[in-house]
Amino acid sequence: MKSTLVKQIYRETDKYLNQTVTISGWIRTIRDSKNFGFIELNDGSFFKNIQIVYDNTLDNFDEISKLPISTAIIVEGNLVETPGAKQPFEIKATKVEIEGLSTHDYPLQKKRHSLEYLRTIAHLRPRSNTFAAVFRVRSLAAYAIHKFFQDRGFLYVHTPIITGSDAEGAGDMFRVSTLDLSNVPKNKEGEVDFSKDFFGKETHLTVSGQLEGESYAQAFRNIYTFGPTFRSENSNTSRHAAEFWMIEPEIAFADLEDNMELAEDMLKYIISYVLENAPEEMEFFNSFIDKGLIERLTNIVNSDFERITYTKAVEILEKVKGKFEYDVEWGVDLQTEHERYLTEEVFKKPVFVTDYPKDIKAFYMKLNDDNKTVAAMDLLVPGIGEIIGGSQREESLEKLESKMKEQGMKTEEYWWYLDLRKFGTTRHSGFGLGFERAIMYMTGMTNIRDVIPFSRTVKSAEF
Amino acid sequence: MKSTLVKQIYRETDKYLNQTVTISGWIRTIRDSKNFGFIELNDGSFFKNIQIVYDNTLDNFDEISKLPISTAIIVEGNLVETPGAKQPFEIKATKVEIEGLSTHDYPLQKKRHSLEYLRTIAHLRPRSNTFAAVFRVRSLAAYAIHKFFQDRGFLYVHTPIITGSDAEGAGDMFRVSTLDLSNVPKNKEGEVDFSKDFFGKETHLTVSGQLEGESYAQAFRNIYTFGPTFRSENSNTSRHAAEFWMIEPEIAFADLEDNMELAEDMLKYIISYVLENAPEEMEFFNSFIDKGLIERLTNIVNSDFERITYTKAVEILEKVKGKFEYDVEWGVDLQTEHERYLTEEVFKKPVFVTDYPKDIKAFYMKLNDDNKTVAAMDLLVPGIGEIIGGSQREESLEKLESKMKEQGMKTEEYWWYLDLRKFGTTRHSGFGLGFERAIMYMTGMTNIRDVIPFSRTVKSAEF
Repeated sequence: MKSTLVKQIYRETDKYLNQTVTISGWIRTIRDSKNFGFIELNDGSFFKNIQIVYDNTLDNFDEISKLPISTAIIVEGNLVETPGAKQPFEIKATKVEIEGLSTHDYPLQKKRHSLEYLRTIAHLRPRSNTFAAVFRVRSLAAYAIHKFFQDRGFLYVHTPIITGSDAEGAGDMFRVSTLDLSNVPKNKEGEVDFSKDFFGKETHLTVSGQLEGESYAQAFRNIYTFGPTFRSENSNTSRHAAEFWMIEPEIAFADLEDNMELAEDMLKYIISYVLENAPEEMEFFNSFIDKGLIERLTNIVNSDFERITYTKAVEILEKVKGKFEYDVEWGVDLQTEHERYLTEEVFKKPVFVTDYPKDIKAFYMKLNDDNKTVAAMDLLVPGIGEIIGGSQREESLEKLESKMKEQGMKTEEYWWYLDLRKFGTTRHSGFGLGFERAIMYMTGMTNIRDVIPFSRTVKSAEF
Repeated sequence: MKSTLVKQIYRETDKYLNQTVTISGWIRTIRDSKNFGFIELNDGSFFKNIQIVYDNTLDNFDEISKLPISTAIIVEGNLVETPGAKQPFEIKATKVEIEGLSTHDYPLQKKRHSLEYLRTIAHLRPRSNTFAAVFRVRSLAAYAIHKFFQDRGFLYVHTPIITGSDAEGAGDMFRVSTLDLSNVPKNKEGEVDFSKDFFGKETHLTVSGQLEGESYAQAFRNIYTFGPTFRSENSNTSRHAAEFWMIEPEIAFADLEDNMELAEDMLKYIISYVLENAPEEMEFFNSFIDKGLIERLTNIVNSDFERITYTKAVEILEKVKGKFEYDVEWGVDLQTEHERYLTEEVFKKPVFVTDYPKDIKAFYMKLNDDNKTVAAMDLLVPGIGEIIGGSQREESLEKLESKMKEQGMKTEEYWWYLDLRKFGTTRHSGFGLGFERAIMYMTGMTNIRDVIPFSRTVKSAEF
């Protein structure tokens, strides 16, 4: 069926003013007087509602006045200006058809609900203002990421979700299997016989697409992944989900400096895109969720990110007395309190911290000439601390192999990853951005469960 | 490091001609004479190579001449026209630096390799012409899908990968678990105790995001999903993968006709986008993989898709004698041979077949007034048959519940899906496009393993 979208009416008002339009949507509020009434209708295309005026010249006036919230209706009427009123225009209805009735038991009544309660009705919560805004921003941010990379000629790679590799040290993994749990096949040694499993071997859900991404960067130069990743850590916090989406670009012929430039450009681009394409939603967050949000995000877009080494950062932090719960000294990882102090108090803008001690970073990071640090970078932003982590990758076969052995990894399982260093290796770099973390940052939402349509966390996989 | 990309040189030649440029990439071929030599360099940004001429005025002339294929180099030189030659221009090198050596054991030597062999080196195969083209097209097609929907205001939804719902009848599922397989916890009845599992219940990998997508369409009106889905069917064919990506749009206030319009527009858009943005790759497929490909795809873009009912299709097919392996009669599902006959022989263009018998279609499809058929649609295209399947969804709570019970489904597990019919239901529709199937169709590749970077199939989860 053909309807005019509410978004069109708001964005191109002149085109529709004093015209007959047909719109369809769901009743958000309804109030009636003796001879007329008002409906706030939302049609899903736009954050704002549109006001409908109906009166008793309509055959079904009485029926309309009794409609429960969330009923779906189709309205034909005239779009007129309403000078001096709260809303810029309204539709004077000439016809109101009922598409689908709701009931007075509808759980999302007008009173404010707690975010906790709304999680229990995750199938309905996108009909509320908060979640309509969150998931619109999520969709736009996802598209901004694709657009950023595609406009720059990057190749989008779907790295595998099911992996036959051992954990890469990034966290606990979920097993993927078709074995019958009530009758697990065993081999002669009494061990689980994974040769009977679907893939003929033990498999898990991926924790990162980086290694596969590297192999594509050595063919296509500039690539990115954007897909779901998984952790089975038993962490029941507001920042941990078992299933979340990650963006992992990987660039060849590129060092840590190139990597930081890319990360800075990307983050600024996503934020700008969302500010530009979701002004109503961002205004809502700024007013009701996180006052100061738009100013903070605008500052990020307009600032030149700072760059300091980990060693320098530790020097700064060591001079601060009595402020931190955890002491800082060279060799230990920075805590969120330290990260936030650097970006919020010292530099008052985003900061790349580079060249971390090799022992606190992953095996694939490039060893610096000092033999003590690796070419890693973390991007710290005001409000949360680390938002992006990346590094130049170790391109030397010899150093990579020796590091892997040092960490007790089975190098033969990584034969293909090591191959990349044998057949025309290049300096190359990459980073990871947790998509949900970015959405929390851009919306001011503080629980990861509230930026994922149907979140999966410890003991919770509803819907 | 700053290099000029080979793509820039091909696309904006005039800007670089007779200038000094620095490029970096991997040697595809090298041949030398006594005093000079030629290198075909690919830098990953572009399908085509660029020719480098080097001579013995370079200090490292001898070293260069011995470089193995796939060695990474950085070249500085002058871009000059080469009138009359096969290539339009070449770079006269003034400097050739070695970034990373390859070896003479490099597995991708110039001779043609079988696709089967190349699957065993999936980490290197994107360096070959065929796979460079396949995965460039895959990336562009993915972006085209996002662009198509976002330009139309559709919301991108990340539906969950791990699902706590029972199978939706779409196929066999993989279990996701952290239980210790060598010591599976049992309850008093001796059954597997899933309350001890990570999510406190039995969970699987999703087979479809449709149901969750529907809940978002009832809030945002027009949405789409684009994510990985899984089947653990024991099918070792060229068309089955255990892990593949699906696109599932869902539209509210929309019937089957709206659904077909959307599917037609989308398919034409994706194909046009790829033809326009990957001309070199598509020319390659047309010449070496599937002669006639470009003509077939262009025909699809330019044709108005046909629409016939299943009943009419069966009438047509019943009249054809002795052509089919399987007989057709009203009530049975169409085989690929029937589908291809309709689209290739009868209509010579894409065909939507609609209104299938209710017994051969899924529970969520809208029952037609005849009580015998459902408002389903399959899109058949020349060359393969069905490429898209969709339907109008049953919006009546009563009919949906009774259908589910008829099929032995536990309606209480779908409480939230049924809720959508209680609280302002609307006519709504949607469809699914298997992404890999679309890529195979657009490239002419005939094995699904060859359009997935690292494919997962029965007994195979390498890399």
